[in-house]
Amino acid sequence: MSLTVGFVGLGNMGGPMAANLVRAGFSVRGFDLSPAGCDAARADGIVIADSAAAAAEGAGAVVTMLPAGRHVLDVWNALAEVAAPGALLIDASTIEVESARKAHTLAAARGCLPVDAPVSGGTGGARAGTLTFMVGAEAPAFAAAEPILKAMGKNVFHCGGAGAGQAAKICNNMILGISMIGVCEAFALAERLGLSPQALFDVVSVSSGQCWSLTSYCPVPGPVPASPANNGYRPGFAASLMLKDLRLAQGAAAASGAATPLGAEAAQLYALFEAQGRGGADFSAIIELLRGRPAGDESR
Amino acid sequence: MSLTVGFVGLGNMGGPMAANLVRAGFSVRGFDLSPAGCDAARADGIVIADSAAAAAEGAGAVVTMLPAGRHVLDVWNALAEVAAPGALLIDASTIEVESARKAHTLAAARGCLPVDAPVSGGTGGARAGTLTFMVGAEAPAFAAAEPILKAMGKNVFHCGGAGAGQAAKICNNMILGISMIGVCEAFALAERLGLSPQALFDVVSVSSGQCWSLTSYCPVPGPVPASPANNGYRPGFAASLMLKDLRLAQGAAAASGAATPLGAEAAQLYALFEAQGRGGADFSAIIELLRGRPAGDESR
Amino acid sequence: MSLTVGFVGLGNMGGPMAANLVRAGFSVRGFDLSPAGCDAARADGIVIADSAAAAAEGAGAVVTMLPAGRHVLDVWNALAEVAAPGALLIDASTIEVESARKAHTLAAARGCLPVDAPVSGGTGGARAGTLTFMVGAEAPAFAAAEPILKAMGKNVFHCGGAGAGQAAKICNNMILGISMIGVCEAFALAERLGLSPQALFDVVSVSSGQCWSLTSYCPVPGPVPASPANNGYRPGFAASLMLKDLRLAQGAAAASGAATPLGAEAAQLYALFEAQGRGGADFSAIIELLRGRPAGDESR
Amino acid sequence: MSLTVGFVGLGNMGGPMAANLVRAGFSVRGFDLSPAGCDAARADGIVIADSAAAAAEGAGAVVTMLPAGRHVLDVWNALAEVAAPGALLIDASTIEVESARKAHTLAAARGCLPVDAPVSGGTGGARAGTLTFMVGAEAPAFAAAEPILKAMGKNVFHCGGAGAGQAAKICNNMILGISMIGVCEAFALAERLGLSPQALFDVVSVSSGQCWSLTSYCPVPGPVPASPANNGYRPGFAASLMLKDLRLAQGAAAASGAATPLGAEAAQLYALFEAQGRGGADFSAIIELLRGRPAGDESR
Repeated sequence: MSLTVGFVGLGNMGGPMAANLVRAGFSVRGFDLSPAGCDAARADGIVIADSAAAAAEGAGAVVTMLPAGRHVLDVWNALAEVAAPGALLIDASTIEVESARKAHTLAAARGCLPVDAPVSGGTGGARAGTLTFMVGAEAPAFAAAEPILKAMGKNVFHCGGAGAGQAAKICNNMILGISMIGVCEAFALAERLGLSPQALFDVVSVSSGQCWSLTSYCPVPGPVPASPANNGYRPGFAASLMLKDLRLAQGAAAASGAATPLGAEAAQLYALFEAQGRGGADFSAIIELLRGRPAGDESR
Repeated sequence: MSLTVGFVGLGNMGGPMAANLVRAGFSVRGFDLSPAGCDAARADGIVIADSAAAAAEGAGAVVTMLPAGRHVLDVWNALAEVAAPGALLIDASTIEVESARKAHTLAAARGCLPVDAPVSGGTGGARAGTLTFMVGAEAPAFAAAEPILKAMGKNVFHCGGAGAGQAAKICNNMILGISMIGVCEAFALAERLGLSPQALFDVVSVSSGQCWSLTSYCPVPGPVPASPANNGYRPGFAASLMLKDLRLAQGAAAASGAATPLGAEAAQLYALFEAQGRGGADFSAIIELLRGRPAGDESR
Repeated sequence: MSLTVGFVGLGNMGGPMAANLVRAGFSVRGFDLSPAGCDAARADGIVIADSAAAAAEGAGAVVTMLPAGRHVLDVWNALAEVAAPGALLIDASTIEVESARKAHTLAAARGCLPVDAPVSGGTGGARAGTLTFMVGAEAPAFAAAEPILKAMGKNVFHCGGAGAGQAAKICNNMILGISMIGVCEAFALAERLGLSPQALFDVVSVSSGQCWSLTSYCPVPGPVPASPANNGYRPGFAASLMLKDLRLAQGAAAASGAATPLGAEAAQLYALFEAQGRGGADFSAIIELLRGRPAGDESR
Repeated sequence: MSLTVGFVGLGNMGGPMAANLVRAGFSVRGFDLSPAGCDAARADGIVIADSAAAAAEGAGAVVTMLPAGRHVLDVWNALAEVAAPGALLIDASTIEVESARKAHTLAAARGCLPVDAPVSGGTGGARAGTLTFMVGAEAPAFAAAEPILKAMGKNVFHCGGAGAGQAAKICNNMILGISMIGVCEAFALAERLGLSPQALFDVVSVSSGQCWSLTSYCPVPGPVPASPANNGYRPGFAASLMLKDLRLAQGAAAASGAATPLGAEAAQLYALFEAQGRGGADFSAIIELLRGRPAGDESR
């Protein structure tokens, strides 16, 4: 007999994740505030409940996938009321480290096993079941959560205790935001110096400047055919989501007393980009802010 | 009968490079202002000349390896006077793009074939003959220079015309400086958040934050055993040299009108580090500036 | 018959402020968690109550002066329970704009008149009664609060409705932090260029670079005799407090979507300074971070 | 009998400055590469010479007002050939400290008295004779130059020896660029927080954030009626000129080893603004970069 998993938050990420749990043989009982999200999930074999609490009742595990820390804390408060003793509570949202720790505390106080497990991989990874999970949990909770996470993703990293998953996520994405802007600055400078993008790519991709932002997600058209730069910067990973993650990193740095000057500057550059109305473009389109004009516009 | 190659600048980089030319069968005639450099080179089979011009006389090619653009322009002025028509002039120094272009112009005016060919790989690569050359030259000059460069390095990239080698070098190193600081900020933040360096490394090295600064040159002891962090931050690549390259990038950006905000900030952080008297440490030691204390000092 | 004013938070700032209320003829009933604070206040004529609520009971107005937003919200929750209908609640702490707005909402819901009134002027101004108050309040609440504020300060600005006082405070202090660092950078650069501090001061103080950080609080010894630079950088206004205010500004910018790149960078530089263990120095001592060594140390 | 003064560079600044010398009773012999500049100067009573050298021949002093360091060095080389022994050479251009020092050296080698005397005050000040001169010169040269400078300006500061005038100018303008952006960030943040520009102005103009950028040149329409913000940001002092000065400061910082992180960031923000095609707007229009849209456009 299969484990019943509750799932709260059936949007662009949560919907396909829950569907993959069904595919893996779990009984999934879901809830979302949006009727459209519920309808889509029903079509994927998820049983729709009347509330978050109803989705959780009697379930051995509940997964939440929500926009921000305050939603997670609200929902976990409700879940902890009704969850069976020893039930797993897994939050896959990307939220403040501090909120994640509060969620752990409130869940543990009710005898639940809390897990923070933010993901990378985007909606494509959610659908394909190839997400990466960065997990903060005590060892028994991690062991219990792992089969559920493996049904939705490819890589599952146990990063440490309460909040460690969130910490790993924002640290990774801070490096990503910084290195993407660094790569974009190099292309913008090369252009002014008459060095072709392909020549720059060929050198840097096998040199000490190599990074994922260049070799897997190149921000100029050409060198990496599958990158959003070849597709009008349709996301991929939207600039506004990168800004959200950079702000989470800045919040954690301020709260913990860390100095992160390039992380702060990266957040500011994405804030300028969003203020220009470009938050919906892929985050690699930040090269247009640096160049002062859209890609392909050679008018200046 | 072997080609005679002049070599001006027989220091920590130039000396071993010239020795590799001898090993590859070239007749090498060298010059350096320092008697010690000349002595070491003589022991490696280089014939020492009385001046840069004397080293160049009758040579089919001359290589220069000098500290700054003004030295290169001074020496090339002297070389162009005496060089045989059609002789190759190869500058392997890292200098301003603008100075490199002036050097090309003055050499071409005298019927020489100019090549800018800055290197990466450090003194280790110079000794082992595994340097990477980034080359700016017209096609015939590149073709003529390639066998000489291959005798001193492993990778030889033809990046474009006059100055393109310098442009590629500073763009690569600007990305390197930025991504190294980004990685250091992430480790500093992780530490404050209670996330272990190894856990951060394990996640990021296979995620979108992956970069050479992390996976090949990790700035904290442990994850990458050969990195300078495991050896008291003995360089490797000194912070003061990274600062020099970042300032070259800033100079090129200012002269060409490019905006490179993270590159500018990275240069400033290395300037603060040098002002603290730390320019001689490996450039990955910048993590100590961010943490506010030496690695391993857990007193705060 | 004099108005009774409750006063919660009798520390370095609150204590002298409450004493000035006594001097102006108000009956003051105070509370502080620290017995030492209570004792000092008693000596100044303040009647000590057993709790924040007890200090507020029957008072026509209550002033709070507390470290952070969470304390203010906790205390105001307690005060609103017991305060007389129509009582003024005045918070003089420097806290998040968002927390200030929440405090307004909860007070208004209980029929109190809420006022946010952060101050500038430091402990010196608190003792001398020369503080500046930046006030967010509806017009009737402002009118009622003004006589009380005038008893503690010299300037009282009505900046707008809920939270407007906090907004004005962090905007002012963000400019202050930025301009102080700008002035310090100019002195550090002048020093390297062989330009004397006095010459720089003489020119800039009557030119377009003029600012309070230079002309009233000069960060190098000499030009402004009363500035902390002449006194070993004893605060004045400690670097850690400037960092706190810059972080409040960054938090407000992130929450509201504003881009403030120099404000972000200023916060990072103060974070680096604090990480070096210098948070207790006056905020003008940031020049030592930029110079890489203490003032007066000419050893490099 | 009046002193004859040569004047090389009769553009928007130099033309009116030379005219003020005529008005003060000097015999002025001028030269400019542009015939239009010469014609305008002739109408103002300047005798036009055939070359820079011809303008200098027999003159007791020569003033140069040119776009960049390389022009100044070229012209001073020619002037030093023909100038009378003991003649004053005064450069009023804004150029690199290093170029100014080279100019001093070459002039002194020929027995001339060199003076660097960059100005602030713009074309308005040039016409009105109210410029501020920041002067680097030995004492005798300063004494000799002062009457000439006073004929063109209101304030004349003796800042030190060779290059000290340029050093003071770039230090002042670096503070100016930084504080202007700081003020703009505060207005942009205030706007998002619902604090009115006038309220912010009223508080800050009498508080610790006070600076010339706010109180004399306010970047939003309203508080300071004469500021360019009230006139569609027509310069005033163009953003591209501020960028030029910030780049001079960065060049001097890099050459001398100073760390100026906010100065670097300010230069980058003006570079982004120029890349957007806005270099011709007043430098206070940088607020539009920060807000993501033109002033007055409330569409977002």
